[in-house]
Amino acid sequence: MASTDKPTDPEYNKGAPPPSATVNCFVLDVTLRVLLFAAALTAVVVVVTSDQTKFIVPFGFLEAKFKHSPAFVYFVVALSVAGLYSIITTLASLAVIWKPNLSTKFLLHFAFWDALILGLVASATGTAGGVAYIGSKGNNHVGWVKICNNYDKFCHHIAGSLAVSLFASVVLVLLVWLSVYSLHGRIPK
Amino acid sequence: MASTDKPTDPEYNKGAPPPSATVNCFVLDVTLRVLLFAAALTAVVVVVTSDQTKFIVPFGFLEAKFKHSPAFVYFVVALSVAGLYSIITTLASLAVIWKPNLSTKFLLHFAFWDALILGLVASATGTAGGVAYIGSKGNNHVGWVKICNNYDKFCHHIAGSLAVSLFASVVLVLLVWLSVYSLHGRIPK
Repeated sequence: MASTDKPTDPEYNKGAPPPSATVNCFVLDVTLRVLLFAAALTAVVVVVTSDQTKFIVPFGFLEAKFKHSPAFVYFVVALSVAGLYSIITTLASLAVIWKPNLSTKFLLHFAFWDALILGLVASATGTAGGVAYIGSKGNNHVGWVKICNNYDKFCHHIAGSLAVSLFASVVLVLLVWLSVYSLHGRIPK
Repeated sequence: MASTDKPTDPEYNKGAPPPSATVNCFVLDVTLRVLLFAAALTAVVVVVTSDQTKFIVPFGFLEAKFKHSPAFVYFVVALSVAGLYSIITTLASLAVIWKPNLSTKFLLHFAFWDALILGLVASATGTAGGVAYIGSKGNNHVGWVKICNNYDKFCHHIAGSLAVSLFASVVLVLLVWLSVYSLHGRIPK
């Protein structure tokens, strides 16, 4: 392992690039985090407003609710965590733009946490996607009927939300890449 | 963004830590990649050998096959890609132990690709997990019956495989962290 960190050392960050490069990197960082927040918020709102009630012969009024599936509940929780995380890290990233001498330390922490949240959002997208696929196509082998022919609004909401959360996963990959690339750029050539 | 890379520059990697620290970092890297390979291989083999045929009254002989669910097919493909990736990067990591002057460049590439494969494995684990949960518990709201009371061997294989692929996701997070931490350690304090 490489040498240990000394964040309290006054010489810390001596090898950082000029402040303008740091600020440019963090402006892109803030932009991506705002996009992540927008995506997470959209995904959560679209799923939460997906509930649909329909009159189906011969059963009467039936409901499709996201709460009926643990997969969609997990999806909403994971995307909410990602949304909250994006708010906190946007503020942290803005703080670095105002005080660039902390940037190396922040890049390390951002990369650590972004990788964790990427795992969370990607798994939630997969979980909801797997269940949504059964809802859309059914599975004849085990007798699971499709429900999207009856609950069109519900399924459109879920599909839209899945697309947005896929976008959020891509943004998180880009955030990890940005932190790694910026750290790499600080190593003397 | 930080300054541009010049991998062909003969002065490249001048700021690297002493060779012993580099080798230690890459020994840990190789260990994690071998673990990733073992986990991916185990997960794929356990799912592929999960097929079960059972006599169920009044239907006769019925089969549970992983190929019947697109979610499990995606799972097998994603974990196979992760397994293949772990072989290639283990060899690359071993190459760095023998030739440490390339280490900074490799750490950058490892972190980039590890983040992508993390997204792939986490989403595959989620997808298969979401479908496996329905197989295990069913969903009364939409009339999807559980199948694990009939296909015990099939479900045990899927559950074991999911646990192993969750472990693979954790290993991938650790690999991203290791690369990021090592890059951070090369920045002059």
